[in-house]
Amino acid sequence: EDWRKQQSVKSTDPYSTDPERHPALRINSLKPFNAEPPPEILSDNYITPSAIFFKRNHLPVPQVDPKSYRLQVEGLPGGAPLSLSLEELKTRFPKHTVTATLQCAGNRRSEMNKVKQVKGLNWGIAAISNATWSGARLKDVLLAAGYRPEVARQTCHVQFEGLDSDVTGTTYGASIPLNKAVSEEGDVLLAYQMNGEDLPADHGYPVRVVVPGTVGARNVKWLGRIIVSEEESSSHWQQNDYKGFSPATDWDTVDFKSAPAIQELPIQSAITQPAEGAVVERSAEEVTVKGYAWSGGGREVVRVDVSLDGGRTWQVAQLQSSEKGQVPAPSPPPGRAWAWKLWELTAPLPPAAQELEIVCKAVDNSYNMQPDSVAPIWNLRGVLSNAWHR
Amino acid sequence: EDWRKQQSVKSTDPYSTDPERHPALRINSLKPFNAEPPPEILSDNYITPSAIFFKRNHLPVPQVDPKSYRLQVEGLPGGAPLSLSLEELKTRFPKHTVTATLQCAGNRRSEMNKVKQVKGLNWGIAAISNATWSGARLKDVLLAAGYRPEVARQTCHVQFEGLDSDVTGTTYGASIPLNKAVSEEGDVLLAYQMNGEDLPADHGYPVRVVVPGTVGARNVKWLGRIIVSEEESSSHWQQNDYKGFSPATDWDTVDFKSAPAIQELPIQSAITQPAEGAVVERSAEEVTVKGYAWSGGGREVVRVDVSLDGGRTWQVAQLQSSEKGQVPAPSPPPGRAWAWKLWELTAPLPPAAQELEIVCKAVDNSYNMQPDSVAPIWNLRGVLSNAWHR
Ligand SMILES: [Mo]
Ligand SMILES: [Mo]
Repeated sequence: EDWRKQQSVKSTDPYSTDPERHPALRINSLKPFNAEPPPEILSDNYITPSAIFFKRNHLPVPQVDPKSYRLQVEGLPGGAPLSLSLEELKTRFPKHTVTATLQCAGNRRSEMNKVKQVKGLNWGIAAISNATWSGARLKDVLLAAGYRPEVARQTCHVQFEGLDSDVTGTTYGASIPLNKAVSEEGDVLLAYQMNGEDLPADHGYPVRVVVPGTVGARNVKWLGRIIVSEEESSSHWQQNDYKGFSPATDWDTVDFKSAPAIQELPIQSAITQPAEGAVVERSAEEVTVKGYAWSGGGREVVRVDVSLDGGRTWQVAQLQSSEKGQVPAPSPPPGRAWAWKLWELTAPLPPAAQELEIVCKAVDNSYNMQPDSVAPIWNLRGVLSNAWHR
Repeated sequence: EDWRKQQSVKSTDPYSTDPERHPALRINSLKPFNAEPPPEILSDNYITPSAIFFKRNHLPVPQVDPKSYRLQVEGLPGGAPLSLSLEELKTRFPKHTVTATLQCAGNRRSEMNKVKQVKGLNWGIAAISNATWSGARLKDVLLAAGYRPEVARQTCHVQFEGLDSDVTGTTYGASIPLNKAVSEEGDVLLAYQMNGEDLPADHGYPVRVVVPGTVGARNVKWLGRIIVSEEESSSHWQQNDYKGFSPATDWDTVDFKSAPAIQELPIQSAITQPAEGAVVERSAEEVTVKGYAWSGGGREVVRVDVSLDGGRTWQVAQLQSSEKGQVPAPSPPPGRAWAWKLWELTAPLPPAAQELEIVCKAVDNSYNMQPDSVAPIWNLRGVLSNAWHR
């Protein structure tokens, strides 16, 4: 009787076993759960606490038993399929720790919606967070499964399958280029810890992929299977979503085959404080502006420009690459700047201004700049929204 | 007598032995010689003929005797200095060929000058060209000189010294990160051929470095010495030039130590046809727009958007990655798209338009976009000018 009842609840609501979430999160969708922290809180910590790290689920959170969990690794020509328990993943491979920022492709989508309606969750500016991830290197696991450099000539993608699935049994899936997966400098992890603790259920317990510098969608959670392949993942999310198009392309003309799947993300920054519409006292004499900046592909943020007058004049912000008051971490090796920078500017209030129009834009070490305005980068899925933030 | 006369001419004019140049080139500076082809000609060929490939010399062209030429390689901990003749460079190492676009950091500087005067040669849009380069891989030469992966932990730059020098004997110099130099996928060449022939005098005869994806200034010509080092090159051009700054930074406030040396360049595109101010016949019904697009760091151009109405509406151009009429080369491996794409759009003339305001902007496979306007990226040296071209 009890068993039947539970089954029937589950089949009516596959989300009934989703974990509890922090009440401060701003919810964009309950089922699947998608939420972001308030921007003012986001920039309070260099390492985002796991509880307020943005949540981006495509499907119900699966319940995974760590004892029976197996990670399958297959598709390596000449190699035998590998099946690893959680314990084996933790003990057979060296543990590596990487601080990496993850950003949803749809971060700041709400700004595109103001230009013209797009399809997708109406993310604000906080679908981005920074954490410390620990686990085995994907490279080491692929080597154990029989990867040899010759493989790269025939096959060029690594597919990931999640254990989360819809009512038809379709699982979440995505892929990354093989050269990123096996690069000594790619730092791709099969992570079993986030911020020093077991992964929370919402972030992929017991194992997720962390692909530093790469769009959130490829950092597959609740990882069940790794497939080395000549082809990209055939999933909806790899083939028919998470791609960028021209502002001229609409749903009646779009050809998803014509654009590459998003992997590395472009330069990004946003203002977290003062909040939009906040009143700055005239008597204050100074205003402090705070925010974050990050670029994909391991490109380091080298400068953030802030304007108080809508982009006519600019000042250079102070960059911060560790918790406030802590000694900054040494500069990352070139091409391996996976973590964001927080930034801050305290500037005199312009004497005559009735209203401050605060704007920020960031520059990375390939000197990529953010585009000035939203409309010319508008796209039907509302991804890659990285215009100057105002 | 004759010998004395020649000496005295040389000492008064070190440029007297510079080679002859193609008469179509537009000269920005005669001594040193700096010139670019007319834009309409630039996009006629996917591979730019060497004679009209943009010339960017910092100093007089040195006269190098190929018989006595030696390339010195030094600075590798535990390795002995290496001295290679031209013949040895050609025979001891496999010959590799790479098609790579080079762009001057100052390309399109003239557009910044229109915002506010900058210091530098007044380049138009054609300080960029594409050629086929052949030579030994820098990686192979460094391995022969004793490079081992452990070296990367202590030293992280590879410096290049040219044989070109000023009256005080100061030679041109620059450096690149060691990881680019030794990467299997970096494709850095010690090139002795350009477009299938010996390097022309203006392009570095007998040997130059070709650092695909990296600003022209690091592609040192007339290469004399390679030094593996803990430090970047101490040259003026590495330390106090070729860096990007905020529009707020001017000569009285600039701190050259505060910005990284330009290495990879950001996404770029420009319109080569119709020429600026050209008259399009109303009776023509259609207009054809052509140009180039390129991005640094091996990022592939995936789309070019063209507007005929100043950026209000956009159309997607056709991309071309080989000579017209030839079978396109296969797509480069990820991160190794070193060559530009030419692009073309034929579109109906907007019926009501008195004037076409043609604009282009490109997107690379990290979805980096060009900034909309010049003023917010203005910088005192007028480098990195990559706003939408109009
Ligand atoms: Mo996402
Ligand atoms: Mo240059």
